Amino acid sequence: VQVFAGDAHRAHHATELDEGRLIPSWEAPARADLVLAEVTRVGHHCADAPPASTTALAAVHDPGYLGFLESAWGRWRDEGHDGHAMGFGWAPRRSAGRRPDDLTGQLGWYSFAVDCSITEGTWAAATAAAGLAVAAAEAIVGGAPSAFALCRPPGHHATADQFGGYCYLNNAAVAAQHLRHAGADRVSVLDVDYHHGNGTQDIFDRRGDVQFVSLHADPAQQFPWFSGHAGEVGTGPGHGATRNLPLARGTDATTWLDTLDVALSELDRFGPDAVVVSLGVDTYAADPISDFGLQLADFTVAGGRLAAVGRPTVFVLEGGYATDAIGRNVAAVLDGFEAG
Amino acid sequence: VQVFAGDAHRAHHATELDEGRLIPSWEAPARADLVLAEVTRVGHHCADAPPASTTALAAVHDPGYLGFLESAWGRWRDEGHDGHAMGFGWAPRRSAGRRPDDLTGQLGWYSFAVDCSITEGTWAAATAAAGLAVAAAEAIVGGAPSAFALCRPPGHHATADQFGGYCYLNNAAVAAQHLRHAGADRVSVLDVDYHHGNGTQDIFDRRGDVQFVSLHADPAQQFPWFSGHAGEVGTGPGHGATRNLPLARGTDATTWLDTLDVALSELDRFGPDAVVVSLGVDTYAADPISDFGLQLADFTVAGGRLAAVGRPTVFVLEGGYATDAIGRNVAAVLDGFEAG
Repeated sequence: VQVFAGDAHRAHHATELDEGRLIPSWEAPARADLVLAEVTRVGHHCADAPPASTTALAAVHDPGYLGFLESAWGRWRDEGHDGHAMGFGWAPRRSAGRRPDDLTGQLGWYSFAVDCSITEGTWAAATAAAGLAVAAAEAIVGGAPSAFALCRPPGHHATADQFGGYCYLNNAAVAAQHLRHAGADRVSVLDVDYHHGNGTQDIFDRRGDVQFVSLHADPAQQFPWFSGHAGEVGTGPGHGATRNLPLARGTDATTWLDTLDVALSELDRFGPDAVVVSLGVDTYAADPISDFGLQLADFTVAGGRLAAVGRPTVFVLEGGYATDAIGRNVAAVLDGFEAG
Repeated sequence: VQVFAGDAHRAHHATELDEGRLIPSWEAPARADLVLAEVTRVGHHCADAPPASTTALAAVHDPGYLGFLESAWGRWRDEGHDGHAMGFGWAPRRSAGRRPDDLTGQLGWYSFAVDCSITEGTWAAATAAAGLAVAAAEAIVGGAPSAFALCRPPGHHATADQFGGYCYLNNAAVAAQHLRHAGADRVSVLDVDYHHGNGTQDIFDRRGDVQFVSLHADPAQQFPWFSGHAGEVGTGPGHGATRNLPLARGTDATTWLDTLDVALSELDRFGPDAVVVSLGVDTYAADPISDFGLQLADFTVAGGRLAAVGRPTVFVLEGGYATDAIGRNVAAVLDGFEAG
């Protein structure tokens, strides 16, 4: 599998509010470094890529949001604050709201969580990650059967105009949209991260040309809490092109793999020209913030089943917080795919 | 002025996320203690009152929200967390959302800011504060020309079902609704706090019997950021019963008092049987988190103008964070009212 990776991500290590404490984010630089070390060790070829262009980003994100993300750290620094840039207020439920001029207000307007802050390196890291996703998609366009974008920060929680869940730019959506622009008539995004990919769902909610299929922890119990229910199936022209498969607390590998088969049958039904896999490995049994039961061998099995779809496939890294195992787990998926 | 005050508030001192740091909230116990000391010193009679009844609270708040607020700290403690109970995720803009079962998810569902946490003493303090508001309203019903509820935590940001802005239960709304139940056909809530009283507006948005008039910092620049624009005038049967008067950064006392006159002419037009004043004194020039220019003498003037409305008036304490001056500023309003 052709791997795209770089080191711009290292300048981004956010703060998160967790259990009433501010802590360095679980989404830490070591994650990507250890994945890169492992996929290199087992023989995959790695290349860097330029940051995503404004055109590629604006194809899935709101221009006002992009301008905000690019300028937020500088504005925050100029205002003289000490900590990372974090909002503290959101529009109450029945408020339509209007974008405020004030930076702290905009941090609320353009986010839906305080589990990730904006830091000095955030914009560079996020645009670099999205650029890796573009490069991986381009490799597929060029004829490769598969490619892996080692994205950090991850992307699947980022909506068209809000960050949250450690995500700022939606790398999987950028890749899917790039494939569409490059000629794929139909693209499926399959999200196997432990958490619902609310951002990707949001971006393609009204689209019939990009399918979104996700298996994830029941949002009644887990972040992002407010989307990912089975009843969410897409809107308007996108009706039927979204499929959510929420899973109970503590789901074991057998149930998870059975549910993956349901997801893959949805892909078969849709018949995509290319597939983007939002590859989170926080379904791992030892993940510190999740509660599913997959072991290393299960990731190999999953990779094989993804290969059986028989479509060009872009893998985009999402979550996975058992740092010492993340490299092996990701490599197992890629190895299973190649062997499949 | 008959003052209602108690000491249950002392058990509540929340944490707030401010400039990317978690700090003890500006909304601190000393605030109420210093107001009580000053109003006692200048000769007002003070009495305590029982906590608000569930009936009084459920008249303006969602029952599910009340059950959540009452149980949240115990659930948080039982889950074994260290810090205060704070949410970290909210429903993204286009998500309709559904109340999650998970406590941390519910902390997001039932709040719109992380500038206040739920602590062990929060429910007791909030219900006690609302009880003081009920007692003050009841004093008016009993024939008193005015009464002051020394509420802490404050209330005007709390919506029917979300906390935020240091507010959990909407004391002013509870008082206004109590007056309605007790026979007042029309009640006006006049909010003179520096910040927009988004919660009170939300609660009475569709009501033609309770007017909401507010002068406050322009939400384009200041918390709560997403409501308080001049174009918000009430909905349906409440159309025309909401009036917002946003003010520019750094508004001076002359402009503020002129705008108060506009607000008072709105009250005259409405013709209430009773008035509830959401009395924040964070319009004070030395307030540490605000930027208006009122001095002590201006609060006396304001009190006199409120008296000129000529209606029974319940004062409910809201904000004011210049702790050393908060007592004098509040007492000046009450003194101006009595002399007016």
